[in-house]
Amino acid sequence: MTVDVGLAGLGRMGRIHADNIARGAATRLAAVYDADPDVARTVAGELGVPWVATYKELLDAAPAVAIATPTGTHAEMTVAAAAAGRHVFCEKPISMDRATAVDAIEATERAGVVLQVGFHRRFDPDWVVVAERIHAGELGEVTLFRTTLRDMTPPNPAFLKNSGGFFADVTVHDLDVARWLVGEVVEVTAHGAAADPAFAEIGDLDTAVVVLRFENGALGVIDNSRSARYGYECSTEVMGTLATAKVDGAHRHNYEWRTPGWASRDLLSNFGERHRLAYVAELEAFAHAVETGTAPRAGGRDALAAFDLAAAAETSYRTGQTVTVATERKNDQP
Amino acid sequence: MTVDVGLAGLGRMGRIHADNIARGAATRLAAVYDADPDVARTVAGELGVPWVATYKELLDAAPAVAIATPTGTHAEMTVAAAAAGRHVFCEKPISMDRATAVDAIEATERAGVVLQVGFHRRFDPDWVVVAERIHAGELGEVTLFRTTLRDMTPPNPAFLKNSGGFFADVTVHDLDVARWLVGEVVEVTAHGAAADPAFAEIGDLDTAVVVLRFENGALGVIDNSRSARYGYECSTEVMGTLATAKVDGAHRHNYEWRTPGWASRDLLSNFGERHRLAYVAELEAFAHAVETGTAPRAGGRDALAAFDLAAAAETSYRTGQTVTVATERKNDQP
Amino acid sequence: MTVDVGLAGLGRMGRIHADNIARGAATRLAAVYDADPDVARTVAGELGVPWVATYKELLDAAPAVAIATPTGTHAEMTVAAAAAGRHVFCEKPISMDRATAVDAIEATERAGVVLQVGFHRRFDPDWVVVAERIHAGELGEVTLFRTTLRDMTPPNPAFLKNSGGFFADVTVHDLDVARWLVGEVVEVTAHGAAADPAFAEIGDLDTAVVVLRFENGALGVIDNSRSARYGYECSTEVMGTLATAKVDGAHRHNYEWRTPGWASRDLLSNFGERHRLAYVAELEAFAHAVETGTAPRAGGRDALAAFDLAAAAETSYRTGQTVTVATERKNDQP
Amino acid sequence: MTVDVGLAGLGRMGRIHADNIARGAATRLAAVYDADPDVARTVAGELGVPWVATYKELLDAAPAVAIATPTGTHAEMTVAAAAAGRHVFCEKPISMDRATAVDAIEATERAGVVLQVGFHRRFDPDWVVVAERIHAGELGEVTLFRTTLRDMTPPNPAFLKNSGGFFADVTVHDLDVARWLVGEVVEVTAHGAAADPAFAEIGDLDTAVVVLRFENGALGVIDNSRSARYGYECSTEVMGTLATAKVDGAHRHNYEWRTPGWASRDLLSNFGERHRLAYVAELEAFAHAVETGTAPRAGGRDALAAFDLAAAAETSYRTGQTVTVATERKNDQP
Repeated sequence: MTVDVGLAGLGRMGRIHADNIARGAATRLAAVYDADPDVARTVAGELGVPWVATYKELLDAAPAVAIATPTGTHAEMTVAAAAAGRHVFCEKPISMDRATAVDAIEATERAGVVLQVGFHRRFDPDWVVVAERIHAGELGEVTLFRTTLRDMTPPNPAFLKNSGGFFADVTVHDLDVARWLVGEVVEVTAHGAAADPAFAEIGDLDTAVVVLRFENGALGVIDNSRSARYGYECSTEVMGTLATAKVDGAHRHNYEWRTPGWASRDLLSNFGERHRLAYVAELEAFAHAVETGTAPRAGGRDALAAFDLAAAAETSYRTGQTVTVATERKNDQP
Repeated sequence: MTVDVGLAGLGRMGRIHADNIARGAATRLAAVYDADPDVARTVAGELGVPWVATYKELLDAAPAVAIATPTGTHAEMTVAAAAAGRHVFCEKPISMDRATAVDAIEATERAGVVLQVGFHRRFDPDWVVVAERIHAGELGEVTLFRTTLRDMTPPNPAFLKNSGGFFADVTVHDLDVARWLVGEVVEVTAHGAAADPAFAEIGDLDTAVVVLRFENGALGVIDNSRSARYGYECSTEVMGTLATAKVDGAHRHNYEWRTPGWASRDLLSNFGERHRLAYVAELEAFAHAVETGTAPRAGGRDALAAFDLAAAAETSYRTGQTVTVATERKNDQP
Repeated sequence: MTVDVGLAGLGRMGRIHADNIARGAATRLAAVYDADPDVARTVAGELGVPWVATYKELLDAAPAVAIATPTGTHAEMTVAAAAAGRHVFCEKPISMDRATAVDAIEATERAGVVLQVGFHRRFDPDWVVVAERIHAGELGEVTLFRTTLRDMTPPNPAFLKNSGGFFADVTVHDLDVARWLVGEVVEVTAHGAAADPAFAEIGDLDTAVVVLRFENGALGVIDNSRSARYGYECSTEVMGTLATAKVDGAHRHNYEWRTPGWASRDLLSNFGERHRLAYVAELEAFAHAVETGTAPRAGGRDALAAFDLAAAAETSYRTGQTVTVATERKNDQP
Repeated sequence: MTVDVGLAGLGRMGRIHADNIARGAATRLAAVYDADPDVARTVAGELGVPWVATYKELLDAAPAVAIATPTGTHAEMTVAAAAAGRHVFCEKPISMDRATAVDAIEATERAGVVLQVGFHRRFDPDWVVVAERIHAGELGEVTLFRTTLRDMTPPNPAFLKNSGGFFADVTVHDLDVARWLVGEVVEVTAHGAAADPAFAEIGDLDTAVVVLRFENGALGVIDNSRSARYGYECSTEVMGTLATAKVDGAHRHNYEWRTPGWASRDLLSNFGERHRLAYVAELEAFAHAVETGTAPRAGGRDALAAFDLAAAAETSYRTGQTVTVATERKNDQP
């Protein structure tokens, strides 16, 4: 009834996952592993769970692993888990190298284990309820897709250097949501800017506008910022022939503070606040997929498709040209 | 197609009416009169209309008059207008003395002229659309009525002295809305306070909570403040067996200003901003009543009924007891 | 670092507490007890915790107990827990009989154990943040308090018979919030109605308006309904000389669904949805009080004070008179 | 103190202008003209103003004209007005032919008369207050601009044929707002689609996404739809280094209608409802410019610049390439 999960990686996301696996109704935190044994020991102590010194031991400790280590190790760890017959929840991206990612995905497919990627928004209740209504046909045919993803403050430079770039690190989430809510994307045109000079210095962006064309001819547009300053915001709009859905929710608390002439509401400051329930739900869903052997809502092929779109965005941004995307339609969900 | 209207009284409300009558699609400002001829001359010059030195001349100038003079003169002017066969739009209250008010109302009834009182909220589009849905039965039977009326800052003391007191000056609007949206009120219990000591000094209130019981058994509650400080607010909620309606609208402009951690919206500062369209619409409706000979949406009997409820609130507040109200049901709208 | 808690009572609230204690960061579910052993066994199995057949055994199982049994047993169980030196989290009311409640409170005081009552709103993040700002003086002096509590649908009749009546079961939460946010209440005037005839048949109410006067002279007003039909709503407004706070939050998800001419948002259906985080937080806070030996934010004397106000409301409703309340000011928080 | 204005053209926009000029505080409707004398006679009768049978007579009737005739006649009429020394308020576009537009603009410049174009949003109170705060520096440097313009239902096909195409007819308003709020645009990339097949049939679009790059390096994005179906929407967001502004306002009335599980608000259905105050204010501003001889807030050079951007969007859409725009910076406002 609960699935034992070993957790590798105890950085920012790893700590969120540690709490959620430990307290989740469908999961049990079997053990934790981190490249730094001191970190592993400390977190294990706080949560009252065992820690292990090697990834090998983690694979021995449970039938499933959650991988939240630095990106460069994801693919290798996924392959090792598959070889050991372990189900895998892996933070995105699987790899910055496409062939490596494909190899890892195929390893899990051959091993017959679940591979779920950390596209948390697919599990956020606000998006899930809208997706259900769209997929049930209540929206009619989609005619326009629009989504906004904004961080209040950028991550630290050390993280940014290994992030894979703005499109692969940030926009990829919106590209996945576009595919999930609307369908396959056939054209990508990307524009970028560095509003904060610190990004220009490392050859990266903090602002982007990415235009999509979907297979059905509809347009889509993504705007992203890593320097929004006012707060964290993630909102999505899907316009259809029968209805239009708008997901919003920018506030931390539900209250208004009124002073002469002005009413103020607080704003969220980071993704952890906005998507708290999504991070819980994605691990419940992972446990469910493991138990039932069903395909996860966000599988390896979804990760690959979104990765390809992010790469197309990168190319478009570098060349100033629209990039046409060959859709393989190897969606995990048939 | 347009009704000529003479306007008496060019104070705060009078100036609002002057503009609206002059620019209204259904009205023409035939002449203006004020106790102070200099004021009349000035306003007439600004609007390019004639001014007259006496109320008698105003009655000669048009088939209809709008009375926005100090309260003490309303009844007398209404009687004089009726005697001259002139239709009357009169700011509330008709008189602080009930018998005098009844005499004035009956004078207009005998003369067969329209008497409309300045219950502007009956003409505010936000309330009108809700009233129409309630009266069409979409709300089912009303089970709870709640309304808020708050001024940002109190009027000046000179005005307050002749205002008739808080319940007759402020609460009376809510009492009228209660009757309009729900039906007759049979019990009134009033509580008051002077949050600002200046009100206590003149024996008046700036805060009140008034509980109503309607003929159908439903409860109602009014909260009022003259010292809300944050802004002007007028909102109404009606709960029914089929639906619940909430009228709100507290903002001057439609925009949000976001700074780190906070999103702010502006607030209205006075009734003129909130009910701008209502003041236009009530004079259009008056013109319509004059032209068609139909009963106005807010007639003399409505004014009397609301006045009686305000008096009951005053009595309840003074005695600390619930006051039972005999409903004559002489609503103007049969 | 975590507090072991034994849970007595596995009805609707008990199940919520079971999950929260079991998964809480600060608590461990040591054992569960229910008058029906089958229920205890089932829940224990689901959560992977021990169950016990008697309350005595539950007291033996942990240094703290949470009591969510039917109201009639609260006081006795609290006394027994105190006698055993166990800290107590008790759902309200402690007892419908004042003397019995006082005895139980004094038993915990004598034993030096924590007694926290289930006034969950004191732990809801939306109210907590407002309370902190009010208590820090940001609101100035309170001039008006207004709060709304509405259930979508009434509980079943069997529950209602033992609920202690509308004021003790529903309004008591608002009375506690009034004391918490504003201060002591010195006058209560209550009005009630049964919008749904089923309530009239059992001599109960489903709608109430309760007017309060606080020690500082400010007015307060509570409106309650058990038959709101549109959804669950809990909102609070506090007006002060410097600012006005409005807690709201009526929606289950953050999205808008637009069809021609209309934009719709979903509504909450029950208290569990609205106050999910509050139920988690109140048990974290209980664990904190147990660990640190500090007074709980909602203690026995708070429960008694709110109970007295609810009793005053009941008396006021029965007599039609305003009831003056003697404030002992034995607030748990000095 | 009021400016006499003759109005040419009594179609949909002309009728709105007729009412606003006739009732405006700063304008007087001197005469109306329409190509169809019956229309002119009817409208004149309704408003109680003279009508004339020729545009020549209209120029004789007042020192200023408002031109709301079909697009093809705008430039010629503007030139004739300038030749007669008449100030001109002209609906956009001045001409679909750039050289013709430039000639008309230069004619007014040589004649020293005011030329104001119908970019109503520059006068809408919601945008004006935001523009003032941005121009005062409260937003810091702009880093991202985003705006949405959506019609509920497309205009009739006859109108569309002469509309100049989607970008020149619809997007041009957003392009003007971009210049007004942020500054000059140096790159335009446009994408379009025909969600409604009727548009494809006439070689036009009903949906577009246009990406802008401003002189300061910031990105901007416009999304437009003529088939939004749910309602009319016009909203704008400007993100800056100090703050972010969001103009919204999608509702016709301020009320919420709650039924079990859902809260609904009405939506606007057309631009007339959304920008009612803007259409009043733009003519007041025109009168002010005429009286004071100051440059209008939306002058001929602004019209030309927005026209050039719309043409760039059209070219970008046709070629699939980003178009670089040479900015002459001949803004009317120095």
